[in-house]
Amino acid sequence: MNSHRYCVIMCGGVGSRFWPFSRNDRPKQFLDFFGTGRSLLQMTVDRISSSVTPENIILVTNRQYSDIIRQQLPQIKESNILLEPARRNTAPCICWASRHIYALDPEASIVTLPSDHLVLKEIEFCKAIDEGFEFVEKGDRLLTLGIKPSSPNTGYGYIQQGVATDGFPGIYKVKSFTEKPNLEMAELFMNSGEFFWNAGIFLWTAKSILKAFDKYSPEIAQTLDAPASTYGTPKEPEFINDNFQNCINISIDYAIMEKADNVYVKTVDIGWSDLGAWKALYEASPRNGEGNVTQNCKVLTTDCEGTIFAVEGDKIIVAAGLKDYIVADSGNALLIYPLKDEQQIRNIVNDVKNRFGSEFV
Amino acid sequence: MNSHRYCVIMCGGVGSRFWPFSRNDRPKQFLDFFGTGRSLLQMTVDRISSSVTPENIILVTNRQYSDIIRQQLPQIKESNILLEPARRNTAPCICWASRHIYALDPEASIVTLPSDHLVLKEIEFCKAIDEGFEFVEKGDRLLTLGIKPSSPNTGYGYIQQGVATDGFPGIYKVKSFTEKPNLEMAELFMNSGEFFWNAGIFLWTAKSILKAFDKYSPEIAQTLDAPASTYGTPKEPEFINDNFQNCINISIDYAIMEKADNVYVKTVDIGWSDLGAWKALYEASPRNGEGNVTQNCKVLTTDCEGTIFAVEGDKIIVAAGLKDYIVADSGNALLIYPLKDEQQIRNIVNDVKNRFGSEFV
Repeated sequence: MNSHRYCVIMCGGVGSRFWPFSRNDRPKQFLDFFGTGRSLLQMTVDRISSSVTPENIILVTNRQYSDIIRQQLPQIKESNILLEPARRNTAPCICWASRHIYALDPEASIVTLPSDHLVLKEIEFCKAIDEGFEFVEKGDRLLTLGIKPSSPNTGYGYIQQGVATDGFPGIYKVKSFTEKPNLEMAELFMNSGEFFWNAGIFLWTAKSILKAFDKYSPEIAQTLDAPASTYGTPKEPEFINDNFQNCINISIDYAIMEKADNVYVKTVDIGWSDLGAWKALYEASPRNGEGNVTQNCKVLTTDCEGTIFAVEGDKIIVAAGLKDYIVADSGNALLIYPLKDEQQIRNIVNDVKNRFGSEFV
Repeated sequence: MNSHRYCVIMCGGVGSRFWPFSRNDRPKQFLDFFGTGRSLLQMTVDRISSSVTPENIILVTNRQYSDIIRQQLPQIKESNILLEPARRNTAPCICWASRHIYALDPEASIVTLPSDHLVLKEIEFCKAIDEGFEFVEKGDRLLTLGIKPSSPNTGYGYIQQGVATDGFPGIYKVKSFTEKPNLEMAELFMNSGEFFWNAGIFLWTAKSILKAFDKYSPEIAQTLDAPASTYGTPKEPEFINDNFQNCINISIDYAIMEKADNVYVKTVDIGWSDLGAWKALYEASPRNGEGNVTQNCKVLTTDCEGTIFAVEGDKIIVAAGLKDYIVADSGNALLIYPLKDEQQIRNIVNDVKNRFGSEFV
């Protein structure tokens, strides 16, 4: 395994959209959605481990999750877990992790991964990552993976492919990025064959991404510009504690990808879903005869369709007459909600917190 | 308080219609449905205690409930709790209890009560019981309370009033009994003004009811015919253990009331509901602005109507788009079911038991 290859896994997100399963103290990436015994984060680490050695896997998370991460990933050494003192979206997170890695290995190349996505085709995924590393290691290039759309999803960002590259089949210059289009546009995008979902999986060398930060996001680059012998040394945590919170809150897409002129997309078919909320989980899960998804639980239904049942523990659900619903029972909360209205769940979680207290969220 | 007045409270029923709240080991009468801190059984005892002294209150139940009864009713002495070795419906139960009381006091008059009903107008109830006692103590008469129907309920038995009695306003000879009429008939009954719901509340002297058993239900009378000095003595439990199970399984209505010619009805307005199942509970409970009943629990609803939410413990329910539903969450079971189909719940409980095990019912 190439010892200059590193992986950054971002696992500090809150993920209130899976409430009541995801909770403030146990967000989505730490949940075992499919009853396989492995959380989404654990599966992410398992998956990348054939391309990147565990010593080179860096986790970036909020400090409140340090215990659960150590518990779920005992194979990752303590110094590879970067604890953010504040939530500042993906750009500051990636900038920090890239500086950390650059300090350890200026020749490093890096794949940056979300921790809460589903990838069903593991072999295709690993092949794509390895090919992506080869591509970015050959020049100053920022690479993102693009997923062939299977539906006109209006919740994703889309990447438009431009001209093909020489010698790297499936890798194209990026022509444009479009965030969350409306349905009409999403349908056009899908039918054109030129647009791909932005999976938030990026490859670059440490050198290239830090150069891009200097050029396209100098505020972050300056805020995280530490004296020599800070990153990769015991002084790093203190520097981060003092400075990280001063970074602007911005995603890597807005801060870098949409601005840079050396951005490429590798189009892949890896069985990907962002599992953004219940509907995506429903679609990613096997259905029973009535078209319901019963997440690993005991369910007795009459005249129910298109419904996802998720329950914690050894409990039975008896239900009738539910069409296209979420039924999620976890701890001290029960959600019975139309799948089509799932975008309301974030607001509901706020309402619950305000009206009934934070012990319910 | 008249020391010849006794009360028999029947509290051995199973009540699977309130599953998952009612369970095999904790049927309806032991539940605190209204969050008042008192179970239906405790409220029944509380209510009758102004007409009958606690020493004269006899409970008849299945032996499996002896612990929960002692726990809920510490004021009732052990010898007043009659433990049935088998379930044989109300006629054998009443015959036994009446013999027990007759042995203690041949001059006894008895009010027999179900333990799982709701009575909102307590003063009216006590007045009716006291007047009923006076009526049955004056002659060989069997008296039942008749409730003025507030809806054409097809689940109840109806009593048709006949000629009025002399000197006892509101007490009539019974003309007929009709079990569970169809809707058309129930509407006719209600509009006629002559028909009343049979609340299963009976008054008689011990002498009169035992005489009626001899005449109209001689099988039960003979099966429970013990040698002298059995009832009311330490020999009684052994005799019952040996013989009670040989009684036929029959209700007091079929065994006696529909056959006897000395049956009277006292028409009353006591705010009564048999709380037979969720719909009745819904109707007996205060509703919130959206027409939902939230049984003492934290609920956040959007676009829900006519729905009853019942949850055990400090838990929140978030629901949307439910019309006329039962949402009941208790222990290891969650029920989400249309109120209109609640008669299916009995069958469902059987299904659950057969498919998932008796620990869920």
